[in-house]
Amino acid sequence: MSNYTPLSELGEFGLIKRLNEKIELTQPSTIKGIGDDAAILEPGEKQIVVTSDMLLEGVHFDLTFCPLKHLGYKAVAVNVSDIAAMYAKPTQITVNIALGAKYTVEAVEELYEGMRLACENYGVDLVGGDTTSSRTGLVISITAIGEVAKGNAVLRSGAKENDLICVTGDLGAAYLGLQILEREKQAFMADPEMQPQLEDRQYIVGRQLRPEARMDVIHDMKERDIKPTSMIDVSDGLASELFHICAQSGVGATIYKDNLPVDEQTLEAAMEFKLDPITCILNGGEDYELLFTVPISDYDKVKNHPDISIIGKITDKSEGINLANKHGQSFPLQAQGWQHF
Amino acid sequence: MSNYTPLSELGEFGLIKRLNEKIELTQPSTIKGIGDDAAILEPGEKQIVVTSDMLLEGVHFDLTFCPLKHLGYKAVAVNVSDIAAMYAKPTQITVNIALGAKYTVEAVEELYEGMRLACENYGVDLVGGDTTSSRTGLVISITAIGEVAKGNAVLRSGAKENDLICVTGDLGAAYLGLQILEREKQAFMADPEMQPQLEDRQYIVGRQLRPEARMDVIHDMKERDIKPTSMIDVSDGLASELFHICAQSGVGATIYKDNLPVDEQTLEAAMEFKLDPITCILNGGEDYELLFTVPISDYDKVKNHPDISIIGKITDKSEGINLANKHGQSFPLQAQGWQHF
Repeated sequence: MSNYTPLSELGEFGLIKRLNEKIELTQPSTIKGIGDDAAILEPGEKQIVVTSDMLLEGVHFDLTFCPLKHLGYKAVAVNVSDIAAMYAKPTQITVNIALGAKYTVEAVEELYEGMRLACENYGVDLVGGDTTSSRTGLVISITAIGEVAKGNAVLRSGAKENDLICVTGDLGAAYLGLQILEREKQAFMADPEMQPQLEDRQYIVGRQLRPEARMDVIHDMKERDIKPTSMIDVSDGLASELFHICAQSGVGATIYKDNLPVDEQTLEAAMEFKLDPITCILNGGEDYELLFTVPISDYDKVKNHPDISIIGKITDKSEGINLANKHGQSFPLQAQGWQHF
Repeated sequence: MSNYTPLSELGEFGLIKRLNEKIELTQPSTIKGIGDDAAILEPGEKQIVVTSDMLLEGVHFDLTFCPLKHLGYKAVAVNVSDIAAMYAKPTQITVNIALGAKYTVEAVEELYEGMRLACENYGVDLVGGDTTSSRTGLVISITAIGEVAKGNAVLRSGAKENDLICVTGDLGAAYLGLQILEREKQAFMADPEMQPQLEDRQYIVGRQLRPEARMDVIHDMKERDIKPTSMIDVSDGLASELFHICAQSGVGATIYKDNLPVDEQTLEAAMEFKLDPITCILNGGEDYELLFTVPISDYDKVKNHPDISIIGKITDKSEGINLANKHGQSFPLQAQGWQHF
């Protein structure tokens, strides 16, 4: 441990100085970043979108299996995902962090390195925030700001009857990745000599530990002139997000079970844990994919897109929200979501 | 306790719905508030300023003596104070809150009522955020956004030699208010029958529990055409903030001990606790007053302002940062600030 620096050695201002040295500003709308009472931004003609999320140790992440660098990356990505779901371009973030005294300077640098990487990947400037102490676990609270041309933001409320329901990537992987990590943690606690069995589950474990915001799909949709009528990111689970879109748009929906995108590893892991894969797909959450609707006239634009699956259609509100199987049978969908309290 | 509602009864979405019902949007730049993946703002020609602060139970506040309504108010005010220190007008906030399971719906409503009151007083819209659970104490993380005409923001870096150093209100009160609250807490813990002795200390206790951001002075300065050359809010203590201004402006400063504004209750409490009042004034912190500099040509505009004291002058960097007494003796000032780690 002799190569590690306790936080008390640097102090708050020293720590902030050291972390900030690595921060580069690249956004033209960032006039002033860290170093004053507030950052200064100049979005010009554009509208800005603002979203904020907080992650707490023991509630949202478990440091026994979550490397700090991945955690830093994820904390930024989940906020960028909300910006993506507005059809906007992320531009700046502010980061508030509370650290227990047990943290070393090097550990905090790992966390920041993950955030810095995410900022680099998404083209985002870290422009401010607050570093303080916590008597208990690590707390990360991030606010992300993005830009969108006036009137171009996509809300949850624009879905219309007959719209196609689409989702990016595949679903359920992050949830099953978490089950695997929890199992290996239990095994490790029972026998600290054991080596975790993750080799053939890299993909789904990675989906849990280091999810990506689907900015790639947003850029692509803009290029192909696909503008969704409604959009939301899948953080609580597909079913829960679909309920939000239907409630805010005043519509119903039918999802086709066979069209739900799922990775082979997710199916294998579901079987291993004796979990219904459809439940994992619908209610697993933390996929950070995008759920959106497009007019049926956009069918040709989305049908062969490698990262987009057409999973259903918007119906009249009176029809409710249903899951249909290949035999044409329909069952009302349940939104489970997460109970935080 | 039968009239209190456990959080689990409402659930996350129910709680958010109940809290949001009371939120009104008044800012013309708020296009969409709570209810989507992100809020939408339209600042138009203006620049925006962004600041973020996190408060943790057991570190920044003690719920044994801090009423939740005051805490909610303070959490907003300390962020608005940073916006004020940029010479900007606060317009929106996002609020992230983590709550322990012990909280009742009514307790959370108290907290939000304080935030709502602050929003109303400062003319700010609550446009987004995140409510989640905490395994330990309460965490509040707020991001505040403000507007300022292009190029009009006041930074810490603009102080020039011979500028007057000014401060609003009085200093040291919040720190001594905290000493009193801590003492009464100890007394209460020793004897739960005791009644707290706060009658003749209302002012300084109030300064600790429910500080105000000095937006009133900012509005007034704008009306009187006073534009500071540099500004910072006093959160860590006057000395620490003065060091920031001097470092970023590349100047020195002399503060006149006899000009430091202090309330009678602060002096009395300092005597009671056998604390040097000057140390409390210089290093107490949490006053949320504004420390700023103006050109000497603005002397007539500030000299008789009831809320502004001229406490010193900016000097050449080589002279350092000094405290002068009435006999003309000068001593180097120490910035103590707060050690968070």
